[in-house]
Amino acid sequence: MFETEIPESKSARTRARISEAAIASFIERGYADTTMRLIADRAGVSVGNAYYYFPSKNHLVQDLYERVQREHAGAAVPLLAEERGLVDRLRIVFESGLDTLVPYQRSAPGFLSAMIAPDSPINPLSADSGPAREMTVSLFREAVSGAQHRLPTDVAALLPEALFVAYLGLVLRWTYDSSAGQEKTRRMLDAGLRLLAVSLPFVRMPGLHQTTRELLTLVVEMRS
Amino acid sequence: MFETEIPESKSARTRARISEAAIASFIERGYADTTMRLIADRAGVSVGNAYYYFPSKNHLVQDLYERVQREHAGAAVPLLAEERGLVDRLRIVFESGLDTLVPYQRSAPGFLSAMIAPDSPINPLSADSGPAREMTVSLFREAVSGAQHRLPTDVAALLPEALFVAYLGLVLRWTYDSSAGQEKTRRMLDAGLRLLAVSLPFVRMPGLHQTTRELLTLVVEMRS
Repeated sequence: MFETEIPESKSARTRARISEAAIASFIERGYADTTMRLIADRAGVSVGNAYYYFPSKNHLVQDLYERVQREHAGAAVPLLAEERGLVDRLRIVFESGLDTLVPYQRSAPGFLSAMIAPDSPINPLSADSGPAREMTVSLFREAVSGAQHRLPTDVAALLPEALFVAYLGLVLRWTYDSSAGQEKTRRMLDAGLRLLAVSLPFVRMPGLHQTTRELLTLVVEMRS
Repeated sequence: MFETEIPESKSARTRARISEAAIASFIERGYADTTMRLIADRAGVSVGNAYYYFPSKNHLVQDLYERVQREHAGAAVPLLAEERGLVDRLRIVFESGLDTLVPYQRSAPGFLSAMIAPDSPINPLSADSGPAREMTVSLFREAVSGAQHRLPTDVAALLPEALFVAYLGLVLRWTYDSSAGQEKTRRMLDAGLRLLAVSLPFVRMPGLHQTTRELLTLVVEMRS
């Protein structure tokens, strides 16, 4: 289920064990019912030792975010190497992102309640989530910059961060999706990408170009 | 700030007093820190009496939703009478909705955390929220049905419920908006409506028509 590297030092192995225990507990018990004590017990370390590696439960959530992003990039990058069309490249990033999230679908509503507050440190738009967010934005940046497209330069530059916000919207809808295999979310993504493919050529039109840039700028500003 | 009717009976007056006390407390203390005891004290009734009128705090939230929707309709309907263009009519409904929410902006993040869980009875997509949701959907239905437009019939029929989901997305963004007067949300709405105005004529094109219908159908299905 997870990419597991073989940690070199005892310290790295302990850290990895705590991280694994936290993820297992998040999946089994959910975010709210997972405590540092439960994580330490499961990892076979003292609570003090767990706090030494991760100063709070939310640091373990950030660790999980970064792990999920590494897996996401690991799945998307080889597929991107084979595809030049912009919308098809975006499809790769969105779809592999949903694939990577599958193990967390049942526990997602509990995470959502904890992360949705604007001042939550585990909010994906928070400063604390910056490193994990930047990994996903980079993936969208690679999808856009490696594509054959005729988008205006300013629109193409805004797209990766705006796509990250769209991705959060998709994941929000996915969290609510009780259909088998979250089929409804995948069909919604597919229909959205097909509409995007038809609409993109029009973005070069003078009136549309400016309004699109305005809207994307405002979407990107949601982060700050 | 609120539409106040003069309740006819003692019972209706007591109910209204409890409702006012709840809203005042939600605004001052937020959702989480408002209890039935605080509401009863503030309204000058016993806790038992408060529970007689509203079986739970969440019933008072539904009461608040319905009140906000009545205010929203009260502001939008007279403006709709003066306007025939579809996008301008949608602008009226979206903008008057944001106006109606102004008193609740500071307490909105607390409500968001409580309402975002898919199984929360105060989730705007829940069965319990059906009556309040239906009031907003009706407003969008009136905006669409009273407009001069050339949209395909099936798309026009799906639009009101899909617009309700878009409205929730806008309110979610507004909850995060710390700019003065939530100016960024209003500019985002404006740019979105201008893009919509340019895009709508294309919906009649055969390829776009079917994909738009698919996407709207999937958006509407988020409710169930």
